[in-house]
Order: sequence, then C-alpha cells, then structure tokens
Amino acid sequence: MKHTDISKLLEQVREEKPLVHNITNIVVANFVANGLLAMGASPVMANAVEEVADMVKIANSLVINIGTLTSTQVEAMLIAGTAANHLGVPVILDPVGAGATPYRTETVQRILKTVKVDILRGNSAEVANVIGQNWLIKGVDSQEDGGDVVNLAQTAARKLDCVVVVTGKDDVVTDGNETFLVSNGDAILTKVTGTGCLVSSVIAAFAGITDQRIHAAVAALSFYGVAAEIAAEKVGHSGPGSFQIELLNQLANVTKEEIGKHSRISKIES
Amino acid sequence: MKHTDISKLLEQVREEKPLVHNITNIVVANFVANGLLAMGASPVMANAVEEVADMVKIANSLVINIGTLTSTQVEAMLIAGTAANHLGVPVILDPVGAGATPYRTETVQRILKTVKVDILRGNSAEVANVIGQNWLIKGVDSQEDGGDVVNLAQTAARKLDCVVVVTGKDDVVTDGNETFLVSNGDAILTKVTGTGCLVSSVIAAFAGITDQRIHAAVAALSFYGVAAEIAAEKVGHSGPGSFQIELLNQLANVTKEEIGKHSRISKIES
Amino acid sequence: MKHTDISKLLEQVREEKPLVHNITNIVVANFVANGLLAMGASPVMANAVEEVADMVKIANSLVINIGTLTSTQVEAMLIAGTAANHLGVPVILDPVGAGATPYRTETVQRILKTVKVDILRGNSAEVANVIGQNWLIKGVDSQEDGGDVVNLAQTAARKLDCVVVVTGKDDVVTDGNETFLVSNGDAILTKVTGTGCLVSSVIAAFAGITDQRIHAAVAALSFYGVAAEIAAEKVGHSGPGSFQIELLNQLANVTKEEIGKHSRISKIES
Repeated sequence: MKHTDISKLLEQVREEKPLVHNITNIVVANFVANGLLAMGASPVMANAVEEVADMVKIANSLVINIGTLTSTQVEAMLIAGTAANHLGVPVILDPVGAGATPYRTETVQRILKTVKVDILRGNSAEVANVIGQNWLIKGVDSQEDGGDVVNLAQTAARKLDCVVVVTGKDDVVTDGNETFLVSNGDAILTKVTGTGCLVSSVIAAFAGITDQRIHAAVAALSFYGVAAEIAAEKVGHSGPGSFQIELLNQLANVTKEEIGKHSRISKIES
Repeated sequence: MKHTDISKLLEQVREEKPLVHNITNIVVANFVANGLLAMGASPVMANAVEEVADMVKIANSLVINIGTLTSTQVEAMLIAGTAANHLGVPVILDPVGAGATPYRTETVQRILKTVKVDILRGNSAEVANVIGQNWLIKGVDSQEDGGDVVNLAQTAARKLDCVVVVTGKDDVVTDGNETFLVSNGDAILTKVTGTGCLVSSVIAAFAGITDQRIHAAVAALSFYGVAAEIAAEKVGHSGPGSFQIELLNQLANVTKEEIGKHSRISKIES
Repeated sequence: MKHTDISKLLEQVREEKPLVHNITNIVVANFVANGLLAMGASPVMANAVEEVADMVKIANSLVINIGTLTSTQVEAMLIAGTAANHLGVPVILDPVGAGATPYRTETVQRILKTVKVDILRGNSAEVANVIGQNWLIKGVDSQEDGGDVVNLAQTAARKLDCVVVVTGKDDVVTDGNETFLVSNGDAILTKVTGTGCLVSSVIAAFAGITDQRIHAAVAALSFYGVAAEIAAEKVGHSGPGSFQIELLNQLANVTKEEIGKHSRISKIES
C-alpha cells in the first residue's frame, strides 16, 4: 500500500464525510466526536435500544466500544450490530479492557456470537483475551520487534474471520493472509485517554468509504500516527494536555505531502 | 436591540451567576459545563428521575437536550420540564438530531405535549422536523440569504407559541411577531462537537436572568458569536482543537467594547 | 509533613502507577482520566453492577463520585464500596452537590451506612451536609481565615471516623487528631468543571500507594495545588480553556524542585 493510496482515501473521507455511528463510553465520547469532526467525518453517538437500529440505517459504519458498559448498552450493541450486518454496514469492535473483568470478557464473546465483526481493534492483551489466549502484558512490552504480536493478530484474524488491528509501538493489520506493519505514532499517545478509542473510530471513518477493509485500517492508522507525530513534535515537552489539543488540530491539518513524508508502512511476508 | 443591551445582560449574568440545570448528553456535558462556567453562569447537570424536580427548584433555567437519549432520561426530562412549568422556570429545548430516527422525532413530540417549552433552539432541519415539515438539508445549505429559514422559524414560533432560534450561517430569533437576525459566529464552530448544544445553554443562562426571552436569545447568540469570531481570529489556522479551547477563553474574556464593535443584529420587518 | 515527603510519594505514584477505579459522573470522566494519566497513575472507569466488584479487585483505590447519579449507579457504588472494604482497598467519597437535592443527601447517607469510607473530600457546604449541619455557603465564603472550616472538618472526621478533606481557598486535611492546612492552588480552578472531582481522584492515586491516608491527602492537595499555581502563572489572563489544558500539562511536569519551592503546608495545633 502506497502513501498516495492513503492520501486518496483521506481525501475521499473529507469529501464524502462518512457518518460514523458510535456506541461508546462516557469517558471518550467527546474526544472521539471531536476527532472525527476534525478529520472531516461525521460522528453520531446514539445508545438507546429504541433508536440504534434506525441510526445504523443512515450510518456508513458502526463502532462498538465497551469502555463503560451497562447492561442496557450491551442490548443496544447487539441490536445495532445485527442491523449493521443486515445492511452491510461495517462493524468495528473495540474490546476496551477485555480480560480486566469477566463481564467484559463475556460481553465481547456475546457480541461476537451475535454480530459479524468486520474489524477488531485492540491492544495485544485485549486481542489475546478475545481469542482466549492468556497473554502476559509485561511479555508483550518487552518484545519490541513485534514478532509475537504479528502471530497473535494473524491467529485472531483467522479465528474471527475478520480484519484484526493490534495497536502498540508498531501497529499490526491483518486479515490472516495479508499483513501490514504501520510504524507511525508517538509514545505520548498513551498519556491521553481515548487515543485508542479514537483510532478505532478513525478506522471506521475510512471503512465507511471503501470496502477494502484492510486498506481502510492501514490508511487510518498511518494517517492517525502521522498526525500524532506532527502534534508531538509541535508541542515538544509541553505535556499531554497540549498534545491532546494539537492532535485534534493535526487530524484536520495533515496534508498528503506530510503523509508522503512520514508514512511508514511495511508488508510482512508470511 | 442595541449592543449596549447585550452588554448589560451579559454583565447581569456574570453578577447573578444563574444556575442552569442541564439534562444533556454524554458527548457535550463537559464542554457545556465549562462554557457556562467560563461565561460566568453556574452549570448543574442532573439526570436522575429521583432528583430532577428538586434541582429545578433551585435552578434559574432548564435545558433539555436529547443528544444521547435513554428511556430513563426521557422520564427525567418530562418530570423536570413539568416542574419547571409549575415554578415558572424557563425551559429551553434542544432537539438534537430530531428527524434522524423516529425515536428522536417521537420523543420531541412527547416532550412538547407534556412540557410548555419557552425557547426552542435547533438547526433548520431539526426545527423543521419538530413542526412536521420535511426539510431538505441540502436545500437549506444552498439558501444563504436565510429567507426560508426566517419563514420556518416564524411558522414554528406561531405553532409552538414560543421563541424559536434557528442557528446556521445567520441565526434567526423570533417569537412569531418580532424577528431578529444575528450574523455573528464563524464556520469553524461546525468543526467542534457541542457548539450548538452549548449555545442552547448560553441562551438558558441569559433566560435565567430576564423574562424578555427574545432579548435573552438575541443577546446570547450575539455574545457567543462574537466570542467565536475573536477565538477564530486568535487561533488562525491552528485547527479545531485550539479553537475549542480559545472559545472557552473568550466566553470568559469578551468585553462590552468587543460586543459593541462586533455585534451584528438586525431586525426583520414582517 | 515536609515537601521532600510529598516529592517522594509523587515519585512513588509515577513508578507504581496505581490503578484508580472511578465510579464517576458523565461531566468529568474524561478530565479525571486525563488528569490521572498525566500525573502518572492509571485510571479505570467502570460503573456496571456486573463488574465493579471485579474491577475493585485489581484496583489500588476506589473513588465514588455522586455527580450525576442514577439509581443503577448507586447500586454499583454500594457493591464496589463493599468489595473495596473487604479487600482493604481505600475508598474515597466525593459527595458532589450533597444538600442540593434530597436524593443526593440521602444517597450519601446510604453509602456511608453500607461502606466504610476512608477519605471524604468535598467543599465546606457538602461536608457540612454529610454530617447533618446546615451550613450557609455565603457564610463560608466570607470566613477567609478558615477557622470554622477547620472545626467542620475535625467534627466530620471524628463523626465519620475517617480522613476528611475540605477544599476551598485553603484546604483542610484532618483525621480528627492531626490537622493540616494546605495553602496551594489558584482561584481559576473554580472556573473549570471537574477540578474538585479530579483532586479527589488525585488523592485516591496517592492513597493507592501508601496506607498513611492523611499524608496521602496532604501530598495530593499540595502537588495538585502547585501544579495549578504554575499552570495559572503560565497561562496568565488567557482564560479557563487554556488553564484546563495547562493544568494537565503541569500534572505531568511538576518537579520536586517546584514542589519544594511552592508547597505551603502547615500543621494546626488543636
């Protein structure tokens, strides 16, 4: 995938302004909406069981994010996901904190049993939990070459029959056949809440304008990572408050020239 | 309405610090609270059916915002609105996304049947939906002279017997008799989530200190628009992140001199 | 308590990254999470009755914040608090708006009947309400020497048998025996929503790494107040938007040298 492809997809997002329906948590709802608006997409947040199926009808993609679950919200997720499947609206699942409590682990399984997920986006511990692996987080952090993370992502993609995105120092994107490594981003992203949730919704924005899901995910990750790099350089050592704001700025401002210059994508031979 | 009247009302808000009770959505709750605090009002957010009637008792105005509805929250809105009517506390309704789903359309009608709304604030598509008109959003965007929007606002005001505010490139304020056009604001407002929700609450702050509802709305819109213009100029092309923060700054900082210089209000002869 | 003790505790927070479980309101969830991340702690927000007891098991402290109560959330608070008591996880209660409505007053009493609270943090009107005193807010604001506030805090600490923190112009920390006055902070804190909620969670972060609860609270308040002072000086008269962002920056950046220079703590002889 070339950086010109990324720029073309980004341009398409900014022109078509895909409507991204987010069923998401109370911590990041504002940040995610602002990030989507900044990049040129149209966010909508709706959680009520009474309306989610109708909202999916006018949406270009659906994000299910389990960050602050309630039992009613889980019902809404199942209804919305089922409706999206019927309509061919791509579903992006963000299993926030899967494995932290049995409720999260079980809810993810319940969603996967009812809803065909098109793209799963999580960190390595979350994705491992989703496919029933006991993944030691310390272990992951020490493997900087990403070897095992690639294996994890591919195993998950084959098991769940979907595109899997494992974000971390490098991001892995795979459908079980093709595998890409995206090496953009900055460590300060971990100091701002919702930067992972937002990337899931950015992926959804790209998935809302192309059926090539793996390309949508790669483009989203590289675009987002480049925006983060430029933002981090701009704010220097100011701190995570300034970075959070500058990231929103850069999601609006990143140009194809900057993507061409900073985008770092490699294909992994399997 | 003269700009000195606006400054006088703003001064009164900053002195009396009206308590604005917001039943609002999870996306904008933080931004709305910060905007109200910045301008000198006192925000309170309370959604529980067990307490909204009591909170209304100590409030100077009530905002009902349907951005992320749940069935329980709708009950709370009806209880709070009824209590506000009994106490003479002005009710501002923001029908976020009315028309996007039947649930939103029906909920707005349910609220209007139970609660006497004093000020309705929405964009043209939302206000059209509230009064049962099928308004094409594309059509609205192309009519930049605001002709039809004025007609829409006046029709809604007469039908609902309340002050109607339709925000857009120009803002229309009318009670069906008197009609004002407020031509402040900046296009970047559409790139930050909750700027419409916040303006509803800013109107509520002004409505909390004067019974002249149409003047409260005109003053709020012009004040808010001037703050946005100054903020947009200050941040230049930095982006929507910086604008969001600078808007909060300017809500705190705007002076009567700046209002005098930038306020653009005209009365429409009917 | 010396400023070197504060720096040592802060260093420990940044190394151990205590997991602070927050059951909190929709207004401040994002700001609190970002504040905890910035200072080096690990935030988690979880409200579901199905999972709060499990989340407490992996947490170092629990914050119960009643800012936007719902009946289900109250159940979750009781379950989480009971679990925390059994596990020896410190519980911090923030009785936001206690006294504003009967529902808040009663909910606080219900929590106190079921859960052993380790640290109570509120403003003087809230703490007075918790112990059944009728405290006139106007009266409090006029007593700038803090005399009565000290008495209020000590009475509450003895009655509730816990550490009580009353924040205001000066902050009072007491367990009923030892009493400290922390004189850091800046008036602009009152212009940003959630700065009180965040300080409760910052106290929880410190309480997550030491059993010396009174020291945890004093250190948290002084650290937070110093960060606020530096942030306020940095942004000057820009406004509350810029201050909010700079406060997050300073929570990440404050050094032990700055704590040494700015920290103002005194012990009150009883």
